[in-house]
Amino acid sequence: MHHNKDREILHHFDPTKVETLIDLMEEYFQTGVFGGGNLGKAMKIILRAKEEGAKIFMSVAGAMVPGGMRKAIGTAMTTGMVDLIVTTGAVITHDLIEAFGVPHLKFLKHENDSELRERGIDRVYDAYVQEDGFPNLEDHIGKLIDHFFEKFNENGQLVTSSHEFLKWLGSKITDNESIVRIAYDQGIPIFVPVIADSVLGLQIWLKSQFKRIIVDEMRDLTVIQDLFHESPKTMALMLGGGVPKNYMLQSSLMSNKEYEYGVAITMDRVETGGLSGATLTEAVSWGKFTWEAPKVTVYSDVTIAFPLLVSAWRQYKSK
Amino acid sequence: MHHNKDREILHHFDPTKVETLIDLMEEYFQTGVFGGGNLGKAMKIILRAKEEGAKIFMSVAGAMVPGGMRKAIGTAMTTGMVDLIVTTGAVITHDLIEAFGVPHLKFLKHENDSELRERGIDRVYDAYVQEDGFPNLEDHIGKLIDHFFEKFNENGQLVTSSHEFLKWLGSKITDNESIVRIAYDQGIPIFVPVIADSVLGLQIWLKSQFKRIIVDEMRDLTVIQDLFHESPKTMALMLGGGVPKNYMLQSSLMSNKEYEYGVAITMDRVETGGLSGATLTEAVSWGKFTWEAPKVTVYSDVTIAFPLLVSAWRQYKSK
Amino acid sequence: MHHNKDREILHHFDPTKVETLIDLMEEYFQTGVFGGGNLGKAMKIILRAKEEGAKIFMSVAGAMVPGGMRKAIGTAMTTGMVDLIVTTGAVITHDLIEAFGVPHLKFLKHENDSELRERGIDRVYDAYVQEDGFPNLEDHIGKLIDHFFEKFNENGQLVTSSHEFLKWLGSKITDNESIVRIAYDQGIPIFVPVIADSVLGLQIWLKSQFKRIIVDEMRDLTVIQDLFHESPKTMALMLGGGVPKNYMLQSSLMSNKEYEYGVAITMDRVETGGLSGATLTEAVSWGKFTWEAPKVTVYSDVTIAFPLLVSAWRQYKSK
Amino acid sequence: MHHNKDREILHHFDPTKVETLIDLMEEYFQTGVFGGGNLGKAMKIILRAKEEGAKIFMSVAGAMVPGGMRKAIGTAMTTGMVDLIVTTGAVITHDLIEAFGVPHLKFLKHENDSELRERGIDRVYDAYVQEDGFPNLEDHIGKLIDHFFEKFNENGQLVTSSHEFLKWLGSKITDNESIVRIAYDQGIPIFVPVIADSVLGLQIWLKSQFKRIIVDEMRDLTVIQDLFHESPKTMALMLGGGVPKNYMLQSSLMSNKEYEYGVAITMDRVETGGLSGATLTEAVSWGKFTWEAPKVTVYSDVTIAFPLLVSAWRQYKSK
Repeated sequence: MHHNKDREILHHFDPTKVETLIDLMEEYFQTGVFGGGNLGKAMKIILRAKEEGAKIFMSVAGAMVPGGMRKAIGTAMTTGMVDLIVTTGAVITHDLIEAFGVPHLKFLKHENDSELRERGIDRVYDAYVQEDGFPNLEDHIGKLIDHFFEKFNENGQLVTSSHEFLKWLGSKITDNESIVRIAYDQGIPIFVPVIADSVLGLQIWLKSQFKRIIVDEMRDLTVIQDLFHESPKTMALMLGGGVPKNYMLQSSLMSNKEYEYGVAITMDRVETGGLSGATLTEAVSWGKFTWEAPKVTVYSDVTIAFPLLVSAWRQYKSK
Repeated sequence: MHHNKDREILHHFDPTKVETLIDLMEEYFQTGVFGGGNLGKAMKIILRAKEEGAKIFMSVAGAMVPGGMRKAIGTAMTTGMVDLIVTTGAVITHDLIEAFGVPHLKFLKHENDSELRERGIDRVYDAYVQEDGFPNLEDHIGKLIDHFFEKFNENGQLVTSSHEFLKWLGSKITDNESIVRIAYDQGIPIFVPVIADSVLGLQIWLKSQFKRIIVDEMRDLTVIQDLFHESPKTMALMLGGGVPKNYMLQSSLMSNKEYEYGVAITMDRVETGGLSGATLTEAVSWGKFTWEAPKVTVYSDVTIAFPLLVSAWRQYKSK
Repeated sequence: MHHNKDREILHHFDPTKVETLIDLMEEYFQTGVFGGGNLGKAMKIILRAKEEGAKIFMSVAGAMVPGGMRKAIGTAMTTGMVDLIVTTGAVITHDLIEAFGVPHLKFLKHENDSELRERGIDRVYDAYVQEDGFPNLEDHIGKLIDHFFEKFNENGQLVTSSHEFLKWLGSKITDNESIVRIAYDQGIPIFVPVIADSVLGLQIWLKSQFKRIIVDEMRDLTVIQDLFHESPKTMALMLGGGVPKNYMLQSSLMSNKEYEYGVAITMDRVETGGLSGATLTEAVSWGKFTWEAPKVTVYSDVTIAFPLLVSAWRQYKSK
Repeated sequence: MHHNKDREILHHFDPTKVETLIDLMEEYFQTGVFGGGNLGKAMKIILRAKEEGAKIFMSVAGAMVPGGMRKAIGTAMTTGMVDLIVTTGAVITHDLIEAFGVPHLKFLKHENDSELRERGIDRVYDAYVQEDGFPNLEDHIGKLIDHFFEKFNENGQLVTSSHEFLKWLGSKITDNESIVRIAYDQGIPIFVPVIADSVLGLQIWLKSQFKRIIVDEMRDLTVIQDLFHESPKTMALMLGGGVPKNYMLQSSLMSNKEYEYGVAITMDRVETGGLSGATLTEAVSWGKFTWEAPKVTVYSDVTIAFPLLVSAWRQYKSK
């Protein structure tokens, strides 16, 4: 009776079976229920998507660079785990702050936000941008924007887009741990649906007061939709929600096909009704996923689940 | 001893004192602790900001129109509670679906998302877009975009922005409950930092394949920053997080002043480190709020707290 | 087509229709979707349960007295809204602290927890127990326990239970805003499944070192199950989760009937798999609710939703 | 300047450095910020507590056995990671269901809760108790309670407590993966502050209708407080919140010492004001932790973080 085909005996996660990260993920997967089970399913969906030749499009929201995820994202790119990135201007801004030589900080002794303000230090939960982070970024990026404009303007007007600018920028970054640089090296397109929504965007805007720089939202749309359309099979891997998640998923709407695999990692709630916490099943009604698509939401802090998935992915891959 | 100036006796919320919505908000405020206390503080900050001549900039994320908040947002505009709106393309898209004659739906009997897909019905948690909602939107909006282009293009090229397009669109909408129409009537600017991230945006993109329509992110930045700069005092009222929250708050960064009042209503968590759940105190370190600014985060479903605040605001105002 | 019997047009919450608290709840109810809709449904379920002669059993977890909810709970009892309470030792302990003359505090200027420790002040989020709160409680309650023992022991041994002790205690409390006193006056039984888990319980334990006082868990079980069994119809109203929620719901398990109405107000998540966040539908599989029972979970801070429901209940009742 | 003693350069989690689970935890720890950083700190606090001779008291709330955590809890006991457990009646009930031969289930095809009810299957999120789980438990446990009573009653009356009963029960369980059995074998006391709040408790209650069985809450209090008092150094490890967390922490209140290490893993929120989500710093004001105690809250699904910590602990230990 326990072996009906619609039911399975619950496996308990067994730490004594865990020597490697592969063992760890297998135990999560075999457990199969609650949050740990979903983490295991997420790993399997990524592996299966790659085995079946799918491209993985990854959306990234939240303060992932101040949160210490820069190399995890980088490794996901260098190891062939992800093939396209949709993210926020803030993720790119913080990547560039480090690329131009100023690391983020942890504080051993907290100060209040008023004192930080006076010292020019910006706080991101328990991480910090140090005093010279933004001024140094502004110096470097200002010159690069000038350079970009001089090179690509036509008759004094430059119409560009986030992925065009970031691709060129990647070719100029020397820090080989930079997300933007790795993306360039690996041929991975980065889309920032609204680069204006960041300090990087404000720097472009500043230049646009003097030089006719136009960041056209429509140009990115053409490219991401073409890339989705050309990809025989596509997986959506979502770190957090927000615009990156919505923008990535909507790239399927004008196409006659859907995402065929899905993994979302988020702390957002389904009950608010917003897209950030919405189930991937709801997305089926919109034609963003097939009904049959293997898909799972892992309700977890991304900084716990994502680096674990990338680390384990490396081990599965080298088996 | 109970009357030290650094401490106060806790007041218990007293339902027997509550006849009106004003009484209700006063009881929340006097209670002053936990979530209810914060809701009362939010009301008082809104009232004080308005008394002191502040403009209220409101960011709106999440599926507020499918969630039944269209008139609450509308009333906040018609009663002078809010003076500027930053929102998502989805909020505008769903507003337009109704403006063009197709209401959203509640279902009394749920179906699964696969069946909904087949019937062309899109689900947003427990609300729905009916079959003809999007086709009807596409018909109407397609013609309006053509009209907009014909009117404003220069030599076959039109460079525009979300607030320009939405202002013009507002003048063409006949539904006087439409957020876009009310904004036009009241002279309230609406900013959608990334209109491309919505079905409305996809329709503009479709037209841009045939007509040279450019939606330039930089144009909105100029206008919102000017409006912030010109406003003698400004309050940030945030419904949810995401790009609308960040974009609105960053409008102070290039200025030599900060937001002086703040109310955030959200279910997002501070512990993920993302901006959506970040405290308003953290924003002080970035120079987005003054240290002294009255500010509070209400951890609540927006569809509970916001219509209550708007309803109570009307009563305070008419006292 | 919009009027199929399985679908309804979405009503938008209309603040211009809201003059009274009844109007407010009707607008939430008519909106019917997302969190605000669920709050409206909760009100209607309470009203319907009472109209149909149901007893309302209410579980109360969380720091409701420091959170300013003492009078809201009291009013729910004096107005006939609730008929039985299951709660924690902490709720009763904080009620007694006030009953014996020491109010809770709000601080206008925060101190760190180490300084509070030195000053003998205990913190509960942003509420506080002042220096003499616990010593004063211990004096009073110690004497009352002696008195209780002298009166009810048999041959030097007293076997009692939470509801017996609290009923007697209610008769001795002079503060007529006390939850324990109001419960006594109104004949509303209070159950604390584990009174040992509180400062009140530690005081009983201290006495039990000198006098043979036995708090028998089994005695309460008999009484609450009998009360459930005798109630023709019963509603479960749950403020938070934890032991009070589980204990109250399990009172139906040994019976041949179920709870017939349910309202849960909580911030707990369904995805952790724990009972605190579990849906009321899951409880159907356990035989705790009927499948047909009107039931809803409101994902809200209790200190926002509960006093609003009690305040509105008073107005509906006096219509 | 980057090397001030109050600040450190942020380390980014580096998946290319991760071969073993120890590497994984070291990377989390070195990252040191956001959720991942807190998970790393939790590991280090456990290791340090054990190195410094502390006893680890662990509270366990939530449906950990249906959630697949039975062996993870078991391994934490057999490897010397935990020294005392405070949990719910439900955790023990589900452990016993399996101990008496009936495993929990996963379903490959979901049914609705009404159909499950008809088939006698109880749901716990996405895990299930199969048809014969409870009847079989009731048979076995009924006989064991009879046996326990016959052995320990004095003149027809038996006054007992959760830890006494569970210790004896452990000696009778043959399933060597049972939490109750392992606890007996390892000499690890289990406390269930309110055994009445569970199906196990209801079975004891049933027997108490025929035999004078008294479960005295005060007896457990004496023992746990003595164990806390006798432990030279004590760490609190909290899986979820609720009564187990509060009960375990309050065991320090009557003592002149505090917990000296703390790790909490929870999805509960601090903003509701309840103890379940309260910070460990708040507990300092109550004298439950020292101000200096290394302590951290990991905001994570327990079924993700806990088995990972146990698996890594095994590897650190065998180094």
